[in-house]
Amino acid sequence: MSEVNRRIVLAARPHGAPKETDFRLVESPVPTAGEGQVLCRTIYLSIDPYMRGRMNEEPSYAAPVGIGQPMVGGTVGQVVNSGLPGYAPGDFVLGHGGWQDYWVADGGALRRLDPATAPISTALGMLGMPGLTAYTGLLEIGRPLPGETLVVAAAAGAVGAVVGQIARIKGCRAVGVAGTPPKCDYVVNELGFDACIDHRAPDFRRALRAACPDGIDIYFENVGGAVFEAVLELLNDFARVPVCGLIAQYNATEPPPGPNLVPKLMRRVLVKRLTVRGFIVFDFHDREPDFLRDVGGWLREGRIKYKEDVVAGLKNAPKALIGLLQGRNFGKLLVRVADDPTR
Amino acid sequence: MSEVNRRIVLAARPHGAPKETDFRLVESPVPTAGEGQVLCRTIYLSIDPYMRGRMNEEPSYAAPVGIGQPMVGGTVGQVVNSGLPGYAPGDFVLGHGGWQDYWVADGGALRRLDPATAPISTALGMLGMPGLTAYTGLLEIGRPLPGETLVVAAAAGAVGAVVGQIARIKGCRAVGVAGTPPKCDYVVNELGFDACIDHRAPDFRRALRAACPDGIDIYFENVGGAVFEAVLELLNDFARVPVCGLIAQYNATEPPPGPNLVPKLMRRVLVKRLTVRGFIVFDFHDREPDFLRDVGGWLREGRIKYKEDVVAGLKNAPKALIGLLQGRNFGKLLVRVADDPTR
Repeated sequence: MSEVNRRIVLAARPHGAPKETDFRLVESPVPTAGEGQVLCRTIYLSIDPYMRGRMNEEPSYAAPVGIGQPMVGGTVGQVVNSGLPGYAPGDFVLGHGGWQDYWVADGGALRRLDPATAPISTALGMLGMPGLTAYTGLLEIGRPLPGETLVVAAAAGAVGAVVGQIARIKGCRAVGVAGTPPKCDYVVNELGFDACIDHRAPDFRRALRAACPDGIDIYFENVGGAVFEAVLELLNDFARVPVCGLIAQYNATEPPPGPNLVPKLMRRVLVKRLTVRGFIVFDFHDREPDFLRDVGGWLREGRIKYKEDVVAGLKNAPKALIGLLQGRNFGKLLVRVADDPTR
Repeated sequence: MSEVNRRIVLAARPHGAPKETDFRLVESPVPTAGEGQVLCRTIYLSIDPYMRGRMNEEPSYAAPVGIGQPMVGGTVGQVVNSGLPGYAPGDFVLGHGGWQDYWVADGGALRRLDPATAPISTALGMLGMPGLTAYTGLLEIGRPLPGETLVVAAAAGAVGAVVGQIARIKGCRAVGVAGTPPKCDYVVNELGFDACIDHRAPDFRRALRAACPDGIDIYFENVGGAVFEAVLELLNDFARVPVCGLIAQYNATEPPPGPNLVPKLMRRVLVKRLTVRGFIVFDFHDREPDFLRDVGGWLREGRIKYKEDVVAGLKNAPKALIGLLQGRNFGKLLVRVADDPTR
């Protein structure tokens, strides 16, 4: 056990894309767990798009990270010592420890993990927040019907990959959008989507149209920007647009130039009777048991697959987040902070 | 009975705001009703914002009116002669006769009206398409809860007036937006809204904010443009935006200048978990019996009121529609094509 707790804190609020100098690694004493608390050592840190929003001053649906405070994040770790009945050293847990080696948690902030059921890292991906986001956004808002066409961007990413695979299980045609030809190949050949279009290809709009011969009934929005504009042309009457993220615009410092397309969007909403609905995974927390049963089951049955992009070393977390915002990861992005004893 | 059927046809597709020369009055023989049909004489013609969309070439949710074809529109009239059992000369009916003196209809396209129950003109307003639009959009999509705040624009108009009054009945704070001080006075003092803001006043945004101290939970969208932009700043978490019309942008010939505010709108949808949903009154046709029972009951009980803006003479219908698109009407706009024998 190392004697210091390395933490990565927010050094400066980024203007536009974050830089490595917006973060700082500091060392502090390892905290101790009081009564009713558990001290955990981080094994995996999840890197997710929402973290960019936390670096801004203005509050979003959650408070910003303060300057000098550790970056927030979901973590999988192992109990070091416990003042809480039911938790023993060596237990694996999911928590919200942030970008650091050690964290202290109350029992309510932990979920126990059984490495015999699924790899512990999946609690940050397929069986964690990204998976629950995909499951609830698709099923509660997208409401897929057999024979419908779903489109999801960042289709090789943590959320998009799950969205498309569940849509297939529900009988939909699943069309992905991704940022490189190898990602598109993976989405079709490994994940089983019906098609996947490279949004960087010059004929993107035409290719998307060709991949959706019956139009689009559900667009699971997690990127925004040009993909949304292309999709809008193809949405069918009564299409649903769950809005879970807008990664393409998180680094923007000012609105894009005109014309202002809000009137066009609203006219499309009216004429096509679209439902555009934002959601955040916490809104559907009560669906977590169903989610774990369904997605856990599909995973064990081999009906859905996942891919992890694991970066070694806490110190590389800033670079990992910077790359995520540029679409450089391939699969669910994790930082391995300490060795995973289950592998 | 006049011996000709005057009809107002579409003479030219308008570019921007329609002009009187985009219409032409023509005379044709009075049609005859065949077996299973009814010949009706128009008493009232409804003038509604959707008519502007029908004048365009591109299809919307309904086909465009052809050049040289009569303008479409809801009508209240009286049966002249009938080849349909159950309909007799003198019966009052609601139909979709368009901008002309006479029309022939099948039984399925008519609703019989009882002048003893409500004035026959209300079948084009409070108890007709505008009322059903207000009722279904507010209740099915807006889903008002007691204590919530609703905002509706064109609050002195055919739809807005009903929306706000039903919201009040459901226990909401109702805030209207209208285009002149007399309209605002009417909305508050006659219709009983809690407040009404003049959108042409220089301090509109501040006044709207002051009228909504707890934010906005439902924005019933029927105008678009600057009102929507002001409302967007005030929407609460989980607010609902039924989109039923966008009259402020119907005459636009090109998108407004930048910046492009779609990313800002989508971010608001995400962070506030908004539901923005377009609808058209036909989508909720099965709610018509409930609507007639509820709104008919409230009307008889004096719990809701309406105001009509009646223009005399079929030949003035083009001017009436042109004025409607500029907000010049005050109340439900009707053209009296022939004398109303019930008044």
